[in-house]
Amino acid sequence: MNKLSLLNKKPPDSFFKFRYFTTSLPRYLPFRFSLFAFLILSLPTFSQPLTRYVNPFIGTKEMGHTFPGACVPFGFVQLSPDTDTIPYDKDGKYNPPVYRYCAGYQYDDRTIVGFSHTHFNGTGHSDLGDFLIMPETGRLMLDPGTADHPEKGYRSAFRHETEKAEPGYYAVRLDDDSIKAELTATTRCGFHRYTFPQADSARIILDMIHGIYNYDGKVLWAYIRVVNDTLITGYRITSGWGRTRYMYFALAFSKPFNDYGWRSGDKTGYRGFWRRFSQYRGFPEMAGKKIRAWFGFSTNKGEQVKLKIGLSAVSMEGALANLVAEIPHWDFDKTRKEARESWEQELSKIRIDADEDRKINFYTAFYHVLMNPVIYEDVDGRYRGLDQEIHTAKSFTNYTIFSLWDTYRALHPLYTWLYPKRSGDMVNSMLAHFDQSAEKMLPVWAFHGNEDWCMSGYHSVSVIADAWVKGIRSFDPEKALRACLTTSTNKYYEGITDYMKFNYVPYDQDASSASVTLEYAYDDYAIARLAEAVSDDSASGPLLQMFAGSETAKYLKRSANYKNVFDYHTGFMRPKKIDGTFKIPFDPLSTSNQGFIEGNSWNYSFHVPQDVPGLIALMGGEKAFTRRLDSLFTMHLDDKYFAETEDVTREGLIGNYVHGNEPSHHIPYLYNWTSQPWKTQEMIHRIIGTMYRNAPDGLCGNDDCGQMSAWYIFSALGFYPVCPGTDVYNTGSPCVNKAVISLPNGKTLTITATGLSRRNVYVRSIKLNNQLLTGLVIHHHELMEGGSLVFEMAGKP
Amino acid sequence: MNKLSLLNKKPPDSFFKFRYFTTSLPRYLPFRFSLFAFLILSLPTFSQPLTRYVNPFIGTKEMGHTFPGACVPFGFVQLSPDTDTIPYDKDGKYNPPVYRYCAGYQYDDRTIVGFSHTHFNGTGHSDLGDFLIMPETGRLMLDPGTADHPEKGYRSAFRHETEKAEPGYYAVRLDDDSIKAELTATTRCGFHRYTFPQADSARIILDMIHGIYNYDGKVLWAYIRVVNDTLITGYRITSGWGRTRYMYFALAFSKPFNDYGWRSGDKTGYRGFWRRFSQYRGFPEMAGKKIRAWFGFSTNKGEQVKLKIGLSAVSMEGALANLVAEIPHWDFDKTRKEARESWEQELSKIRIDADEDRKINFYTAFYHVLMNPVIYEDVDGRYRGLDQEIHTAKSFTNYTIFSLWDTYRALHPLYTWLYPKRSGDMVNSMLAHFDQSAEKMLPVWAFHGNEDWCMSGYHSVSVIADAWVKGIRSFDPEKALRACLTTSTNKYYEGITDYMKFNYVPYDQDASSASVTLEYAYDDYAIARLAEAVSDDSASGPLLQMFAGSETAKYLKRSANYKNVFDYHTGFMRPKKIDGTFKIPFDPLSTSNQGFIEGNSWNYSFHVPQDVPGLIALMGGEKAFTRRLDSLFTMHLDDKYFAETEDVTREGLIGNYVHGNEPSHHIPYLYNWTSQPWKTQEMIHRIIGTMYRNAPDGLCGNDDCGQMSAWYIFSALGFYPVCPGTDVYNTGSPCVNKAVISLPNGKTLTITATGLSRRNVYVRSIKLNNQLLTGLVIHHHELMEGGSLVFEMAGKP
Repeated sequence: MNKLSLLNKKPPDSFFKFRYFTTSLPRYLPFRFSLFAFLILSLPTFSQPLTRYVNPFIGTKEMGHTFPGACVPFGFVQLSPDTDTIPYDKDGKYNPPVYRYCAGYQYDDRTIVGFSHTHFNGTGHSDLGDFLIMPETGRLMLDPGTADHPEKGYRSAFRHETEKAEPGYYAVRLDDDSIKAELTATTRCGFHRYTFPQADSARIILDMIHGIYNYDGKVLWAYIRVVNDTLITGYRITSGWGRTRYMYFALAFSKPFNDYGWRSGDKTGYRGFWRRFSQYRGFPEMAGKKIRAWFGFSTNKGEQVKLKIGLSAVSMEGALANLVAEIPHWDFDKTRKEARESWEQELSKIRIDADEDRKINFYTAFYHVLMNPVIYEDVDGRYRGLDQEIHTAKSFTNYTIFSLWDTYRALHPLYTWLYPKRSGDMVNSMLAHFDQSAEKMLPVWAFHGNEDWCMSGYHSVSVIADAWVKGIRSFDPEKALRACLTTSTNKYYEGITDYMKFNYVPYDQDASSASVTLEYAYDDYAIARLAEAVSDDSASGPLLQMFAGSETAKYLKRSANYKNVFDYHTGFMRPKKIDGTFKIPFDPLSTSNQGFIEGNSWNYSFHVPQDVPGLIALMGGEKAFTRRLDSLFTMHLDDKYFAETEDVTREGLIGNYVHGNEPSHHIPYLYNWTSQPWKTQEMIHRIIGTMYRNAPDGLCGNDDCGQMSAWYIFSALGFYPVCPGTDVYNTGSPCVNKAVISLPNGKTLTITATGLSRRNVYVRSIKLNNQLLTGLVIHHHELMEGGSLVFEMAGKP
Repeated sequence: MNKLSLLNKKPPDSFFKFRYFTTSLPRYLPFRFSLFAFLILSLPTFSQPLTRYVNPFIGTKEMGHTFPGACVPFGFVQLSPDTDTIPYDKDGKYNPPVYRYCAGYQYDDRTIVGFSHTHFNGTGHSDLGDFLIMPETGRLMLDPGTADHPEKGYRSAFRHETEKAEPGYYAVRLDDDSIKAELTATTRCGFHRYTFPQADSARIILDMIHGIYNYDGKVLWAYIRVVNDTLITGYRITSGWGRTRYMYFALAFSKPFNDYGWRSGDKTGYRGFWRRFSQYRGFPEMAGKKIRAWFGFSTNKGEQVKLKIGLSAVSMEGALANLVAEIPHWDFDKTRKEARESWEQELSKIRIDADEDRKINFYTAFYHVLMNPVIYEDVDGRYRGLDQEIHTAKSFTNYTIFSLWDTYRALHPLYTWLYPKRSGDMVNSMLAHFDQSAEKMLPVWAFHGNEDWCMSGYHSVSVIADAWVKGIRSFDPEKALRACLTTSTNKYYEGITDYMKFNYVPYDQDASSASVTLEYAYDDYAIARLAEAVSDDSASGPLLQMFAGSETAKYLKRSANYKNVFDYHTGFMRPKKIDGTFKIPFDPLSTSNQGFIEGNSWNYSFHVPQDVPGLIALMGGEKAFTRRLDSLFTMHLDDKYFAETEDVTREGLIGNYVHGNEPSHHIPYLYNWTSQPWKTQEMIHRIIGTMYRNAPDGLCGNDDCGQMSAWYIFSALGFYPVCPGTDVYNTGSPCVNKAVISLPNGKTLTITATGLSRRNVYVRSIKLNNQLLTGLVIHHHELMEGGSLVFEMAGKP
């Protein structure tokens, strides 16, 4: 184990108790053997399955907001235990949606409410948690109960010792009723296996009220239909973070239920159903806003009851078709194996040589990188669009869950590099979203046929430009360019009209005006690069070339708008008002009402990835700029300011640099533009070493749909896309001894960090296919040629 | 005008004020000229458009529950003014859904809330009222206001003098803002034309909360999307009488709106939409449970703003496709003319010679007969089924709104006779409903993808049997028979399990047990006849023939179950308990908790249409039976009992005979089984003359989706299907001088009542194609041969 995890002040008690780790690693492995271990692990260990290095519990405690459940890469269904959602507090008083439970699971909790099928990975806002399943025996309990009194509801106590999580599989023992629960998944389906004790009245609960970020009234309508004694279908419509969300299911039981019933929390039984017959037991339709159903069995000791459930955003029919297509059998282990293999296949795209702990962090980061976005279409290609209509994705695979303010930075560039097919599909998904948008906007924060307008910027344009500039050609460039232009001139969206009028977003009009201006300026640069690339491409044809050319100039000009919120007096980016004066008072350390969103001016002042030389000039030249970077990383951030910082732990800070939040992610690389690039190299190792730990609380902030993890992957390999939308990667310092990357074009890139050690973190030279790099950049086409990329490491700058 | 309308104690003031009538009839036409008028009108007046004899206001006052708005025959869209729905009373207190407003319109009201697009015709329970449109000028008012203070809301005062209603067209002047409103419709679309005064701020209100039988929370979700400045789309999901109902629209304006906005009655704007930009004005998406939108214009004096709106139960896309297909232009008058012509075409199937008033009653009844069921599918054949999935009606046209307890009696037999194509389509619609039913039931009271389980019996089987027995072959007999068998043995439905066990439904188990038993027994007879016909048909093949044959015997036996609730001691049908004893106490006059639904034992005791001779025997022979009938029609019903009678006015009674409710509809014909059939003949004329009047309150009870009107059509023509499912019609006494009926097979049937006058109501002889009828029955195949049916009328029995 590496030093850092031992330095962790409060190592989680249960860390070594994961059954998975206890079997895969000698429990007694002491620190002094780490060199030995290092040598062992340096041998060609490629035959080891890489999934064994994934620890799904990383990030499940505190701020990571990851979940430990079962899913496949980019799988729509992400089936995971929810430990709470706390719609009500201990006194039964209504509690607003609770930030802690963005992913449904918190490692410190001691009870599981049940297993639901949809989750976000690492978000800072939330929704989903569809169709909670929970087994129980004995007395019928249709309420979940509380964490303090799980025995009063269907929820159950559990212990981490009995938990097992691996890619595509999750297991736990539900202690209340001694039921073993196992989960696996396919793209659109969940597969449950429950091992019951002997019980006359065993039961599966299906809770249609349960949800993540739940509140009273979130479920607009729910419906369950008993097709026969092994098949039920249903759906619900929710208005949560996603304003209008439809989700359908088809659920098959491996064993016929012998009884069933439901309860409604409001008067939503059949109106006028005045017969003697009860519609609450044995009646094949259930509907309402607050319904919970149960399905009864009698079980022998050790008897396994299996459930498989297909999901669809289109219809119950669609859900059933998904189920039939993806799990046509009852072989749980087969599905589990296929899920594991699908992960193995993805993870093996990058085979690294590093110590065990780094491998775990690396492959867990890779695992998290492949969780969101998700495939969002039925097996027949149909999906529910942003316009709430049913569409068919004809020449692409449709994806959803775009947290673009987070993910345009490194997650999408990672896909552009390693998953050009998926990347093109995602661009096409965004263009379809644009077509379906009443506001004619590319996605901002979009999921499941909803746009949430969360955070700022129009960063889809960055993803699109990045894909095109790096050679992805599976989408229509004219359509893409026009969508970017329309989006960036949209009259509905945050301050764009003012932005175009004043060349900055005035603070009088927008509380985040300064950061919004900076983000727009960067996005405009991405559009310019897209327009330029389209213009340069003779395949575009003369008319489009001419059109794109004129837009290039216009957007290059817009991309300089960052200068309009720079205050020469203080040397900081600072919100400016309509009258041209800057906001007073102004505190560049505060993140509260200073004109910046999720960041302070200290951090955001570096947010000019598109023109670092220009920024350096603004800040008074290279020396001043270097000093500013040094200060950022070394200053002490007062508790007062820390308290304002969202979504991160104290460990997520280095000085005033906030790694747990995205706006700073490129800053460590900015030393590359100074005469001290070794500080970038040092900082990368520091961040990699301290802010990503193999522990439930190992993430210093929200994983944010994989952006935190994507930063890790790039940085650990030795480079990072500071400015997506260009074909340039900026070098840092590799944190693995060796990485063999299977490129999507069939070539292989081998990255070697010669002489890397805990001390040797500085890069003496970089050779690409034996050619010495003269600058600190690598171009995309160079990477794609494969071959060798050798970093010669040194103990001194 | 005929005497009866003048005898009407309180003729409605406004009757002669309908603009339509003032132009078509001389206003001063005195009674003394009625003979002259009679002669004039007796001349071949077939060139007069028959739509001129339709008075859509008949039944709009009190109990008729008809609506005066615009629709086409069997049209899904029925666009009509709603005068109130009273979700709140005068003090602002919540008021439960109000029975008076089943059709949205009450003639005595003096204000109009607006114009909505879906209505039931004549029901006793209700729903619908989708998408209320209302024009206004001046100050923005997004609340409807109250009937007492229309000026405080968008609703408006109006006067009947300015109203005009004819088939396919409705017009009224909205006095508050001096706006003329005109409505017309196609099958799936509504067309509005508003003539505005000069107004800087004219406006169209779209109220998504408004509905019929409204209650707080009925709208589960509503959505409006502004596609451009002349097109909006949207939908709502309601849980009203129909538990889960989806309705979509696409609405086009003839003139671009220059501004728009909305208000939400709850917090359902975009969550997290914290931008400076307001989502409540000029923002192209609106969603929530309680939303009302407005669209602004400036208008010149006399300027017409037109709206056309397509409806769909499938999707907004479907609604738009319907709109484009059915109203591809902006010519309101063209659509109005086409609507009128479609009515003319249907009404001209029966050309009668009768006095003006009778013509008006007859054609208005015919008009009402063609309003429900409605076509329920998009132009591409897709519709939302009972299972809430989208289906395509492939080889039939799908219909909905089946109020079968009412309509199996005469409405469906009328379709079987005159509309065999539609009748077959309706059977196929019922079979599709059966396929989609979780309970595997044929429809009971079904509409818009919902089953309401309202009233009792499984009368779909009667409709199916009637269609098959009368030669309709457009559905699969085996499927139909199996659906009937499954339905009639359904374990979920009211007391069927007990019925099969005890041969009656025990009163201990069901408060309507006696009437339910009677209805099941009749339905079982219908099944027997269907099975027999299938068995007799060599096209069925030997296996199905054998199977159907065995079911015939079984169901014939079940059809005698009526005997099991006959109490020899009292001579009445009487609820029986599990132990075989009859309910004590028992009051055969009461309709309250006596084991009968919407009727007392006095009336229900005659409910054995399938075996009148058997009933006569039970009741002690023909003389006793005749006395019983005489008593029914002559006894005085105490106010105490009248108060219990649902849905009817005092005028709807003859003695204790309740014409305003359906269970008695066949009783006047039962004298045919006695030696005094002249009493049937007399009674028909009495009912036709007194219970159907050319006045807003001219219907003595709910029109019940046309059943009351269908009774009129048959009876006025001289016969009635006492026992649907057999090929027999029972003769009564014609109430028109002549009727020329275009049969669906291309033949013509001419019915003549020779010597008919107000006195000559008795039938001396009946000749069918010059052959004297020996009995009081006519067979279906005889009618279908066309030719002449001559009733020789006399002044004495």
